[in-house]
Parts: sequence; C-alpha cells; structure tokens
Amino acid sequence: MTPRELLQHALTLSVQKSASGENGPFGAVVARGGEIISEGWNQVTQLHDPTAHAEIVAIREACRKLGSPHLHGCLLYASCEPCPMCLAAIYWAHLDGVVYANSSQEAQRAGFDDLRIYRELTLDWPERALKAERLVIDTAAEAFRAWSANPNRVEY
Amino acid sequence: MTPRELLQHALTLSVQKSASGENGPFGAVVARGGEIISEGWNQVTQLHDPTAHAEIVAIREACRKLGSPHLHGCLLYASCEPCPMCLAAIYWAHLDGVVYANSSQEAQRAGFDDLRIYRELTLDWPERALKAERLVIDTAAEAFRAWSANPNRVEY
Repeated sequence: MTPRELLQHALTLSVQKSASGENGPFGAVVARGGEIISEGWNQVTQLHDPTAHAEIVAIREACRKLGSPHLHGCLLYASCEPCPMCLAAIYWAHLDGVVYANSSQEAQRAGFDDLRIYRELTLDWPERALKAERLVIDTAAEAFRAWSANPNRVEY
Repeated sequence: MTPRELLQHALTLSVQKSASGENGPFGAVVARGGEIISEGWNQVTQLHDPTAHAEIVAIREACRKLGSPHLHGCLLYASCEPCPMCLAAIYWAHLDGVVYANSSQEAQRAGFDDLRIYRELTLDWPERALKAERLVIDTAAEAFRAWSANPNRVEY
C-alpha cells in the first residue's frame, strides 16, 4: 500500500469506529514496507482507559505481534497529529516516523485537549496546572543504583 | 497511609520488580484518600510494550478498577518524575496531582531518555529528530465533523 492509502485507512478507521459516539474520532495504523502490521482506534471511554488513544493501541498491538517493545523500520499513520502522550510513545517505541492528516489545531476545534497538554509539558512544575510535589527520601536512588550495577539489565 | 508511606511503597516496587534486570527500575501507585487503588511497575521489556511504564500501568489498572477513564480525586505516587508520555497520561486521566522522589536528571544518569524526549516535544516538526510528514487528504476532517454533530458522543 502507498503512504496515502495507509493514511486513508487510518482515516477510515477514525470515521467507522467513532460513528456510535462511544469512541473518539481517531484512527491509526502501524506499517512496515507498505504492509499493515496493526490497526488502532480511540477506545478511551469504551475500555475505561485514558491511554487507549488510536496511536497507543496500534503501537501496543504491533509490538505484541512482533514480540518487541521497539518498532524500528516501521511507520505510524495517524488520522491526526499525535498528542504529547502518543508522540512520546512514538519515541519510546523507536518508530522510524509518523505520517498524519489532521493537525492538533483541528483536534482542538473538535474539543480535544492536545495543545493545552503540549503547553503544560513545556512549563516548569510551578507554572503547570497540575499539582506536583517532590519528596526527598534517602533511599530513593536505590533502584537506579542496583539497575546500573546489574550486568543482566535489559535496556530499552 | 501518609504521602511519604505511599511514595515509599512506589520506591519499594521500583527496587523489587527490577531486581532481575528484566523490568526497568520504576514503580508507581495510584491512591485516593491515602488508600492504594493500584500499583504499577515498569514492564516494557517483559510485556514487549513500550508504553508499559510504571505510571501508565498503575493508571490503567486504577481506571479498570474504578470503571472510568478519569481519576478525579486520586493522586499518583511515582518513584521518579514522570516522562512526557506518563505526564501527558496524567493530564488525560484527570488525576489531582503527582508526588515523586527521583528527578528526570537522575533518570538520565541511569540511562533513560526522558529529558531528550521532553526537549523533542518542545520543538516544531522540522527541528525534531523524528521524521514526520503531513499529507493533505480532502476528507480528513470527516470524523471530526461527524463527532461534533453527534448528540450521542461521549466526551472524555
């Protein structure tokens, strides 16, 4: 399939899967060499899972199929520019890139918070709307120390 | 349990669950009114899931238990300052706040990419290390239009 066909498929998912109003209007596809590995669509309210964005669903399914937390050599086709959660997941998954149709501005006009969260992430803690507190605990670094010293650690 | 005890519990998970070297050295707890609702620990390599960070695991489990994609009235206790994926998930989950012990700088010293991804998210597409392309497709906004016009839509 061509990039345009793959993106069209993600858009078709975004329309079909949100028709009832239960799922948000977003679709995504992970592909390698023009071949679809996985599909995803927004299932936040259906699954009671705030992380079940189309992109995350597609990434998790592709990783399950390939038996790896990394998707080197794969591209993500998303009906809309990824929100910061999904964009960070794309980095963690080591995808080669992302192709999208609608912009975050268009998502905002449809009532989605992506741009507000992008702005929050650029701020330091005191300026963020989210309340946060750091507690100093003497033994806090113990897991990091043990991890760094463990020759059997599996890096990701 | 006190905030300090809840954070200590997240730290204990981070040590115990990463001892073998298979799981990353991170733990998290979702609590409401001092009571633990869910626990999470990093399972990226074990589950072949790049999104299985401690915070995401704990958030998904708390939402499953409470039957809602939103965690109003709950706090997240995390062994380390959340990465951008997890921080955005905290916003999407409508948690009241986050309490953490180690900083992103300490995670970086242990070899984790949080700060690099935070920096990437502040950039515009042309400056990012991730390749991205926007394709213009005439019908791209169809799902958003249908969603906005649907009186049965479930907002989240």
